[in-house]
Amino acid sequence: MKRGIFISIEGPDGSGKSTQIEYIKEFLQSRNMEVLFTREPGGTQIGERIREILLDKNCSEMGPMTEALLYAASRAQHVSQVIKPALAAGKVVVCDRFVDSSMAYQGFGRKLGEAVDIINVYAINGCMPDVTFLLKVDPDIGTGRIHTKRMEKEDRMDMEKAAFHQDVYRGYLELESRYPDRIVGIDASRSIEDIKSDILTKLEEVVKGVTG
Amino acid sequence: MKRGIFISIEGPDGSGKSTQIEYIKEFLQSRNMEVLFTREPGGTQIGERIREILLDKNCSEMGPMTEALLYAASRAQHVSQVIKPALAAGKVVVCDRFVDSSMAYQGFGRKLGEAVDIINVYAINGCMPDVTFLLKVDPDIGTGRIHTKRMEKEDRMDMEKAAFHQDVYRGYLELESRYPDRIVGIDASRSIEDIKSDILTKLEEVVKGVTG
Repeated sequence: MKRGIFISIEGPDGSGKSTQIEYIKEFLQSRNMEVLFTREPGGTQIGERIREILLDKNCSEMGPMTEALLYAASRAQHVSQVIKPALAAGKVVVCDRFVDSSMAYQGFGRKLGEAVDIINVYAINGCMPDVTFLLKVDPDIGTGRIHTKRMEKEDRMDMEKAAFHQDVYRGYLELESRYPDRIVGIDASRSIEDIKSDILTKLEEVVKGVTG
Repeated sequence: MKRGIFISIEGPDGSGKSTQIEYIKEFLQSRNMEVLFTREPGGTQIGERIREILLDKNCSEMGPMTEALLYAASRAQHVSQVIKPALAAGKVVVCDRFVDSSMAYQGFGRKLGEAVDIINVYAINGCMPDVTFLLKVDPDIGTGRIHTKRMEKEDRMDMEKAAFHQDVYRGYLELESRYPDRIVGIDASRSIEDIKSDILTKLEEVVKGVTG
């Protein structure tokens, strides 16, 4: 089976993921690579409907395990319907958040621990990113950026207390040390240009490793 | 912690669950027991929203694992928000479908096997029925009953082929032999009165066993 490249971008909200995804897009398109950009939760019609429930501020009664299972359901659909077929067709798949988000937010933030890993083994069905860019910035700074940029669009997850976002961030750092071959940590407290430069340098290596 | 009684009703669609639930209701209310009737998927506001996705005929692209995880998500919310609190308050909880439905429909029908059991360990979080009435009727007969009764309301699961419903049914029979202490198989090919009589006899025992 022909195999593309699977890249995921992770980090706290406000870490600058969207901006860097634009640069990744430019870079890959300048190489004439066929690229699919997608996001989680969502990425499919069913996934977007699950996303609506997950981010709805009126669902404040949602339990931690319900949340973890809904993210996993959205991911299972995304993998089987979109990501696996795109990789099989040799495309580069760039995904805004993937399984590490569940491990950080539900595993560490909601303190569900290993349960999240086990549930997601079924959700991803062997489909792990080749490389994951983790944009590292203290969530207090990230949250500040969000509040400035999109106060009006605050969702259920954004509304969590600062302590939750600190737990999530510690989770991300733990994942970085657990999977050093896959997760590339990027200091995202620096300028946009510096972050971009680090990402594109690594991306160049990854693309060369596969195509060259 | 004070502990009520947890009863689930299982069986293929068209096996007569709704009718028998009405008799169970009458019986328990005649004993002045505080009873909560609920159903899956659903039973909570979040669960009902998940139910809409699960049963939507337009979601024909839904993968088997997505389906299993959505049922589990609905169940996790149901258990934590409704069933556990009601049992803790000493109520009798009667649930139209519970975890055995997932094991039969997704485990056997969709052939996901043990994965469904493992996912549901997290969803139910130790909350298993004290007794489960399994209404046993060949799905070909059950399906005939549905088509006569509610053709216009056919949902995504009803639309599955006969072979799927036969696999589900074989799954139910396997579960009955696997959990003989909990699952009470009832021959539901007989008259409504005969089925009712068997269920209420067993129910009498269960109620006596708890209330003394």
